[in-house]
Amino acid sequence: MSETVYDTDGQVTEAQQAALRLANVSEDDRDDALQSIADAIREHSEAILEANEQDVAEAEQLLEEGEYTQALVDRLKLDDGKLESIAEMVESVAAQDDPLGETLEARELDDDLELYKVAVPIGVVGTIFESRPDALVQIAALSLKSGNAVILKGGSEASESNRVLYETIVEATGEMPEGWAQLIEAHEEVDALLEMDDKVDLIMPRGSSEFVSYIQDNTQIPVLGHTEGVCHVYVDSEADLEMAADIAFDAKTQYPAVCNAVETLLVSEDVAADFLPGMVARYEDAGVTLRGCPTTQEFVDIDPATDEDWATEYGDLELSIKVVEDVYDAIDHANTFGSKHTESIVTENSQHAEAFMTGIDAASVFHNASTRFADGYRYGLGAEVGISTGKIHARGPVGLAGLTTYKYYLEGDGQLVATYAGDDAKPFTHRDFEGDWRPGQLSGN
Amino acid sequence: MSETVYDTDGQVTEAQQAALRLANVSEDDRDDALQSIADAIREHSEAILEANEQDVAEAEQLLEEGEYTQALVDRLKLDDGKLESIAEMVESVAAQDDPLGETLEARELDDDLELYKVAVPIGVVGTIFESRPDALVQIAALSLKSGNAVILKGGSEASESNRVLYETIVEATGEMPEGWAQLIEAHEEVDALLEMDDKVDLIMPRGSSEFVSYIQDNTQIPVLGHTEGVCHVYVDSEADLEMAADIAFDAKTQYPAVCNAVETLLVSEDVAADFLPGMVARYEDAGVTLRGCPTTQEFVDIDPATDEDWATEYGDLELSIKVVEDVYDAIDHANTFGSKHTESIVTENSQHAEAFMTGIDAASVFHNASTRFADGYRYGLGAEVGISTGKIHARGPVGLAGLTTYKYYLEGDGQLVATYAGDDAKPFTHRDFEGDWRPGQLSGN
Repeated sequence: MSETVYDTDGQVTEAQQAALRLANVSEDDRDDALQSIADAIREHSEAILEANEQDVAEAEQLLEEGEYTQALVDRLKLDDGKLESIAEMVESVAAQDDPLGETLEARELDDDLELYKVAVPIGVVGTIFESRPDALVQIAALSLKSGNAVILKGGSEASESNRVLYETIVEATGEMPEGWAQLIEAHEEVDALLEMDDKVDLIMPRGSSEFVSYIQDNTQIPVLGHTEGVCHVYVDSEADLEMAADIAFDAKTQYPAVCNAVETLLVSEDVAADFLPGMVARYEDAGVTLRGCPTTQEFVDIDPATDEDWATEYGDLELSIKVVEDVYDAIDHANTFGSKHTESIVTENSQHAEAFMTGIDAASVFHNASTRFADGYRYGLGAEVGISTGKIHARGPVGLAGLTTYKYYLEGDGQLVATYAGDDAKPFTHRDFEGDWRPGQLSGN
Repeated sequence: MSETVYDTDGQVTEAQQAALRLANVSEDDRDDALQSIADAIREHSEAILEANEQDVAEAEQLLEEGEYTQALVDRLKLDDGKLESIAEMVESVAAQDDPLGETLEARELDDDLELYKVAVPIGVVGTIFESRPDALVQIAALSLKSGNAVILKGGSEASESNRVLYETIVEATGEMPEGWAQLIEAHEEVDALLEMDDKVDLIMPRGSSEFVSYIQDNTQIPVLGHTEGVCHVYVDSEADLEMAADIAFDAKTQYPAVCNAVETLLVSEDVAADFLPGMVARYEDAGVTLRGCPTTQEFVDIDPATDEDWATEYGDLELSIKVVEDVYDAIDHANTFGSKHTESIVTENSQHAEAFMTGIDAASVFHNASTRFADGYRYGLGAEVGISTGKIHARGPVGLAGLTTYKYYLEGDGQLVATYAGDDAKPFTHRDFEGDWRPGQLSGN
């Protein structure tokens, strides 16, 4: 058995070259290429589904052997309807506003010396994702729309589907700079990729918290991703208790598997007696497993919560409940045990709302709304690139702007720094103005 | 000899607590505290200069032993004039616009459901810097202005000065949340700090390229800094040659030790014969050591450049010269050997300018201006926090905004996600509007 030789460095270098050219492909051409991808997915549906059947057959084998779950097999499986949704998703990415080329700031430094801050692509984005084959298409589409070259690494369970989808994408985008999308398949290639902090500008992992943490711990490349979501709803002493019950119910039960679902309900001691019995009954009717602090247990008959519960993302129909003294106690609890993802206060008292919202260090803090609103689509960001629990570059739900950076363009007519330095230095004017960068607007050609 | 026990974790935890409160200190109170720092520096000048004398005496001892340079001793030394400049610098930071609280985006998601994206501090910033004692004061002032808690680690050669300056700052800011500034002094503490990626949000190293690279390679915390500046000036076939000579001269000689000085001059083969002899004579008159490619050597009598020269940041009166075919050849050279810092084209042809500016991947790309303009003060960013050669979070010269992130505030009146999901989902309105977040503006209290 011969050892496979991977040329990850060659692939990433090719992507780097392509990125330089892709940064200057017009919006129309990028959108045309996205439309070609959507068309090609429809045209090649037979080949894609055939490859997918191989993946599914293998997964079903592993399911029988008890190594895979039915949920994993379901996520893996494509059909005509799912393929059409994928094609439509690509079209919807094409329809987004162009994230590139916008002049973010324009400032006159002096006569005929103008500085422009312009949105540009980041460069080369490495993406590593698990199972679902539609992830490959979505990530490729988001990268192309934002002018970034992309390295794609999917889960091995979807390898046949991913390969055919990748080939379909490459074939459909022949007009784009060659090598803009690269597929890697082996774990050794991922390890090599994570080492390339001189060539790869951003890593986007998608998968479980453990998976994202693993990536973060094993690369010097900036990582855009989120680990866990330990979110709270706090029912204040001055809450509208009916509203609070609806929000607490929605935040837990509307879709418990996601990161913006609530994990701990905090209740002011002033309203605990009024609020808890009805709330607990409603949760129990919906099949939610509950655990509470000792004070909670004085009001309702549920199991005790341990310290571990306060830091746990259940991701399921499970919830811990804690009675707190007041809004400041709630803030302390959320800052201590929360994951800086999303927190919500229910109150009619605007001072309590302000204390909670400004006092908690989290990407999203809500007043009288369900934590489940923390999402790129609901926020109106368009296509969601990911959710970040980091504070640097992008925080919270991230749209296409998260795949851009900026570049400073300075247009002069021969200015020297010597003129603006020393004892008789000429002063700068530093006057902001509205205007877009157009090359050579000062040189007159 | 007993082993010193450091409580870096305790210090950083205290800073983390302080950061939560500092985020909500008003602009006026932060500015008052900065004024107190400036006043205290003036009041305690005697004690500061006394401590500084100890550092200088020790440094002069090491200078005699050949371990330190005179330049280092000079940078270390404070006097009344320098202290007054430091106090004025703190006042100028206080006078900057508040980087906090600005509503960056406001969007109606639906009736009475309003999303605000608001600028907030990053949290805890770790800073590690070399020699100059004024760095400690500047970094502390920038952190306080931007509402961030700060961990300060200065060079051991300035330890006495730093300790007294730190004590002066802490004493002067008794009204600020306790523990907002922390001084650490030992290498062991730096190692501990670099490990604390769960508590420290950003590291700002200041020092040599090697020093910044070392920090980048040894922490998972995001690093705001710049390594090297290999900048180019390209003299195009259609350049105004007089302008080109002035720019190339300014970019090299006005201050050669800094990262935005030019290291390689690229000259179009169409103008090399006309341009090079005069330019080289002017450089040589100014004491610039020159090395050129073989084609350059056909026109002027200078030493040969090796491949190593193209990638070298001389940081001194040294320059390499290369004759290139055209603007595309210049772009390739800059993308291959440059450090993505600052690049400049001199040309009257706007197509060439556009190709160069959009084709080069660098933080700053200039047309008909000296590379030396790449600087926070000249860009009108106010106080410069640093220069970043990374692409994530902040790129190029970075002002106070580089020490902020954002937070999403959502104001509702009881909205549930269930209303906006499923078959008869209510659509979002997603209408951007001008408005600032004020807590509880919907709840009416």
